[in-house]
Amino acid sequence: MKPYFSARSIAAVLTASTFAVAVYAQQKPCTTASKFGPGDQVGNVNYITPDKTLAASRLVTTGRAYRLAIETNNKVPAFPPRTFSVTVLQPEQSGGRSFGPNKTTYNDDIIMGWVGVGTGIDGLGHVGVGDLYFNCNKEADFAEANGLKKLGVENIPAVATRAVLLDMAGYFDTDMLKEGTVFNRAEIDGAMKRQGIRSIEKGDVVLFRTGWIKLIGKDDKRYEDANPGLGREGARYLASLGVAMVGADTENLEVVPFEKDAGVFEVHQILLPENGIYIIENLNFEEMSRDKAWESFFVLGAPRITGGVQAIVNPIAIR
Amino acid sequence: MKPYFSARSIAAVLTASTFAVAVYAQQKPCTTASKFGPGDQVGNVNYITPDKTLAASRLVTTGRAYRLAIETNNKVPAFPPRTFSVTVLQPEQSGGRSFGPNKTTYNDDIIMGWVGVGTGIDGLGHVGVGDLYFNCNKEADFAEANGLKKLGVENIPAVATRAVLLDMAGYFDTDMLKEGTVFNRAEIDGAMKRQGIRSIEKGDVVLFRTGWIKLIGKDDKRYEDANPGLGREGARYLASLGVAMVGADTENLEVVPFEKDAGVFEVHQILLPENGIYIIENLNFEEMSRDKAWESFFVLGAPRITGGVQAIVNPIAIR
Amino acid sequence: MKPYFSARSIAAVLTASTFAVAVYAQQKPCTTASKFGPGDQVGNVNYITPDKTLAASRLVTTGRAYRLAIETNNKVPAFPPRTFSVTVLQPEQSGGRSFGPNKTTYNDDIIMGWVGVGTGIDGLGHVGVGDLYFNCNKEADFAEANGLKKLGVENIPAVATRAVLLDMAGYFDTDMLKEGTVFNRAEIDGAMKRQGIRSIEKGDVVLFRTGWIKLIGKDDKRYEDANPGLGREGARYLASLGVAMVGADTENLEVVPFEKDAGVFEVHQILLPENGIYIIENLNFEEMSRDKAWESFFVLGAPRITGGVQAIVNPIAIR
Amino acid sequence: MKPYFSARSIAAVLTASTFAVAVYAQQKPCTTASKFGPGDQVGNVNYITPDKTLAASRLVTTGRAYRLAIETNNKVPAFPPRTFSVTVLQPEQSGGRSFGPNKTTYNDDIIMGWVGVGTGIDGLGHVGVGDLYFNCNKEADFAEANGLKKLGVENIPAVATRAVLLDMAGYFDTDMLKEGTVFNRAEIDGAMKRQGIRSIEKGDVVLFRTGWIKLIGKDDKRYEDANPGLGREGARYLASLGVAMVGADTENLEVVPFEKDAGVFEVHQILLPENGIYIIENLNFEEMSRDKAWESFFVLGAPRITGGVQAIVNPIAIR
Repeated sequence: MKPYFSARSIAAVLTASTFAVAVYAQQKPCTTASKFGPGDQVGNVNYITPDKTLAASRLVTTGRAYRLAIETNNKVPAFPPRTFSVTVLQPEQSGGRSFGPNKTTYNDDIIMGWVGVGTGIDGLGHVGVGDLYFNCNKEADFAEANGLKKLGVENIPAVATRAVLLDMAGYFDTDMLKEGTVFNRAEIDGAMKRQGIRSIEKGDVVLFRTGWIKLIGKDDKRYEDANPGLGREGARYLASLGVAMVGADTENLEVVPFEKDAGVFEVHQILLPENGIYIIENLNFEEMSRDKAWESFFVLGAPRITGGVQAIVNPIAIR
Repeated sequence: MKPYFSARSIAAVLTASTFAVAVYAQQKPCTTASKFGPGDQVGNVNYITPDKTLAASRLVTTGRAYRLAIETNNKVPAFPPRTFSVTVLQPEQSGGRSFGPNKTTYNDDIIMGWVGVGTGIDGLGHVGVGDLYFNCNKEADFAEANGLKKLGVENIPAVATRAVLLDMAGYFDTDMLKEGTVFNRAEIDGAMKRQGIRSIEKGDVVLFRTGWIKLIGKDDKRYEDANPGLGREGARYLASLGVAMVGADTENLEVVPFEKDAGVFEVHQILLPENGIYIIENLNFEEMSRDKAWESFFVLGAPRITGGVQAIVNPIAIR
Repeated sequence: MKPYFSARSIAAVLTASTFAVAVYAQQKPCTTASKFGPGDQVGNVNYITPDKTLAASRLVTTGRAYRLAIETNNKVPAFPPRTFSVTVLQPEQSGGRSFGPNKTTYNDDIIMGWVGVGTGIDGLGHVGVGDLYFNCNKEADFAEANGLKKLGVENIPAVATRAVLLDMAGYFDTDMLKEGTVFNRAEIDGAMKRQGIRSIEKGDVVLFRTGWIKLIGKDDKRYEDANPGLGREGARYLASLGVAMVGADTENLEVVPFEKDAGVFEVHQILLPENGIYIIENLNFEEMSRDKAWESFFVLGAPRITGGVQAIVNPIAIR
Repeated sequence: MKPYFSARSIAAVLTASTFAVAVYAQQKPCTTASKFGPGDQVGNVNYITPDKTLAASRLVTTGRAYRLAIETNNKVPAFPPRTFSVTVLQPEQSGGRSFGPNKTTYNDDIIMGWVGVGTGIDGLGHVGVGDLYFNCNKEADFAEANGLKKLGVENIPAVATRAVLLDMAGYFDTDMLKEGTVFNRAEIDGAMKRQGIRSIEKGDVVLFRTGWIKLIGKDDKRYEDANPGLGREGARYLASLGVAMVGADTENLEVVPFEKDAGVFEVHQILLPENGIYIIENLNFEEMSRDKAWESFFVLGAPRITGGVQAIVNPIAIR
């Protein structure tokens, strides 16, 4: 089927209404208005200035670089109904053909699936409060079927900043925390004190190690069904400190089951739309924690898929 | 249709023959044998030691971080028949449903397409000489339809090393080089001298700026059909220096039309299977070259899609 | 992210509420209630009884069979942002491998894309009036991201019935009608009279030839932007006659621009949710109309993709 | 990467060589040459003439129509590594938006996966003998990554012919045959005699019921690993009779484990490339066999995906 007005006309209408929303936002910012102005699409990543990057680079003292991603494939536990596949083929080489006298052959690959499988970053267009998304953007104005027209992951700038790894399992004196264990301000401050971390600062990335990642491949169902994680007060505390990103070695970052009286994924709402703070999930900190790499230089270049909601990433932490 | 022996049996047979090949390789390495031993899957990235990373991190003097990727979408020029799409949807939210009293809503995204669209890294399983791939791997032993069983991009370790950006357009005193302009040892050494770069070292990433990227969106056909780039002697020269990766702001890295008497994508063969050197294509160096950021701290975390031939990436260069 | 209650729990909740809706529907049917009872999922196709099929089979007098589908590919005009691709590969045959002493080789194919490309049938779960779909089904109760839980195309039974092809272009004495030309009762009756068709009956498939299909490949933009087609009164008239399916050689079946004062795709609403009548689009009747095959035996087996909203089909008409 | 000569040039070269092959074929047909001439792409379906269709239509005596397809989804057993998924979404309707004053809403669907899942027809480009496919086509000349350039399923004409259902389980006096049970001429003739079928004729579709389909959902592994089926002599016998298509209620049609001394999928080679006979797999004949619908009017319209190797189908048998 096809509307009277062509899709291009519909787009024009949508653009017009988007504009109206934007004008209104300038006059009277909404509850998700960005500190960085009405045109901002990347939130607290704006805190990562060259000075911040330069200072963080000085955390490199051994040259040890950590690859924080787990693998993305059709077996790794993922939020239903997400699936993922890769297919390898040899285009135009059937029958053993190769190219040229030098016999060039090549493999190519196709991916089909949901982006939210494996280690991923949630863009600021991932979660909303009703139809209200980050920086007063209404979902209807930017969430088109062929890609987000705002807040897409292609907008994320180069991220090179300080990471603080909080060993929450260590803080609770265990190797793997139980599902439902919640981290709020007291636990965050406690873990910092235990690890000798003086402060969390604007533009920092805060990473929570729970040990939960070890369940993958051993008890995928438990990995998926719940996890220890960040609570609402903790999320607001981190927001008050101006962090740019929060990550964890779990599928949800936030505690599941949710805190008593908490809404559904309320921590996601506090971080993404309300404060412009990115979330990274399914990270692996086992090697870093063995090395007590509590503070590091964190570098993330998210693949720039235009209009992407999330991105499959592999952050690198160096110290 | 379905073979007598189940797919699992076929896999077993393949594994057995792979093993035989590996044993043989230990006895008598082939022409693509790795310097790093028969089990090696990542080639010259092995040169990126903690010492190398530590030294490279000292190149950060201003804190300026550059995002080197262009966007991946259905419009960017790509090697035929590669296509790419992203689709945004709102699972289980039809009719304006949201989750919980806090009215959580969310967008999710699906990708369908070929990995080699936009800025991408060619893994060591991408190109072969006939059926011979890097480190004596025979294509039949690892290139399965559901993903590479060896040399997949999931194996690439954290990359944090020195990058040398060679401004070839500047060397030829132009803003954008013509297609077919070739870089061999003389041009590489000349550009280095002009930019005051003393040496290229083991584990470095060498980046060639040609200005070609500016064609995207303006003359996509010209962008796709040919480009200035690396020649065979230049590739062998870089290999002799032990570089880990080579990148360019073109679709092919190597010069197209190929050099006179050159085979089809022979430079790809010299770099990938014969020397274990990764290739990164479709990079954007315009900002870096304006800032004369000739030497930088280069950090790359390739998304870890299991069995992936290539990966959509976004390297970060910092200085 | 992952909800407190697992996906299985959400499914349980949805099932429970579905049940509640169903019970309610039995007590007080809604405006889209099926004539065939609260459990019905296929609407007027129920009129196609063995007697109907037997009688229709007697329309075969020459044995000429018509393939009514156009091709589905990445070039055919389609409702934005729909796209489609097919990829051919040779699994496990790189390097010219084959299977067994008999050298078996094979090609396999992958499809990625939107179902609504090319000749397609709209299932009864395709269009709703707000959140109300056919037979009192609420969208939230059956439209899950991993497939429709009701009204999916897998439910469509074997269709073998009488087709009536109305040559509307002939009725208007032209070879191709203009966009916006509307067919209502007067035009339907007039065309029938002109072609000597006495009646349209329960379980019939009514096909409208407009000549529009000839634009494909010649003026795709015009093909997509508008078309001649069925009006609201005409749709209600056909519904009153109990037709099972309505088809046309256009992308929308219904007239575009919509009739004055008509809503957006109101004819789709009249047919699909309100009357349980399937729609088939992008059909090719050129051969049939040349042969004046006005009445025929129409056979359609829609591919049974579980939970599919639409299906790519190729109906066969025989006379 | 990108070849010196553009993809268009490669296509030109391929076209030229295709032409050369075609000319040669006319001079001296190869072992897979079609009886229907050098340009033929559909093999024995050519035997289905209007007279054949007309005669077959007379088999309709009760009007009972059978839907022969099973469902296609991510659970049904399929030849590895084939997978399939459908995703339902509501484009441009986030936040409960609808279109127009009449509140139109709609679901749309995306499919990702391998065509060979569920009930499917193998096109004549599916299987070859080395690089030789049906009618002297060399794989390199038509099997391109973006779709077959010859022998694609879009070429299959309307199929409306006689079907003969052979109840092989009944012939062996059981409800479900064991894996490895082979049907050759003696068994085919025996089953025909038992069911009172006088002959199998040119253009017929021969269907084998084994009862195997009942394993789906109960013992998928057994369903996939082997099955009763057609042997080589039986395949040659059917070819000698000029059948157009052969189908079965198994994944492979042919017997698995293969007959002693048989090659890998040799029956597929006898039928597809050597004789131009299509294969349909994973059919469900349970209802037909209960009704003893041994002879019927068989109608198949395969979805016309351009360049498709196989097609997901749902043949209709009527008697």
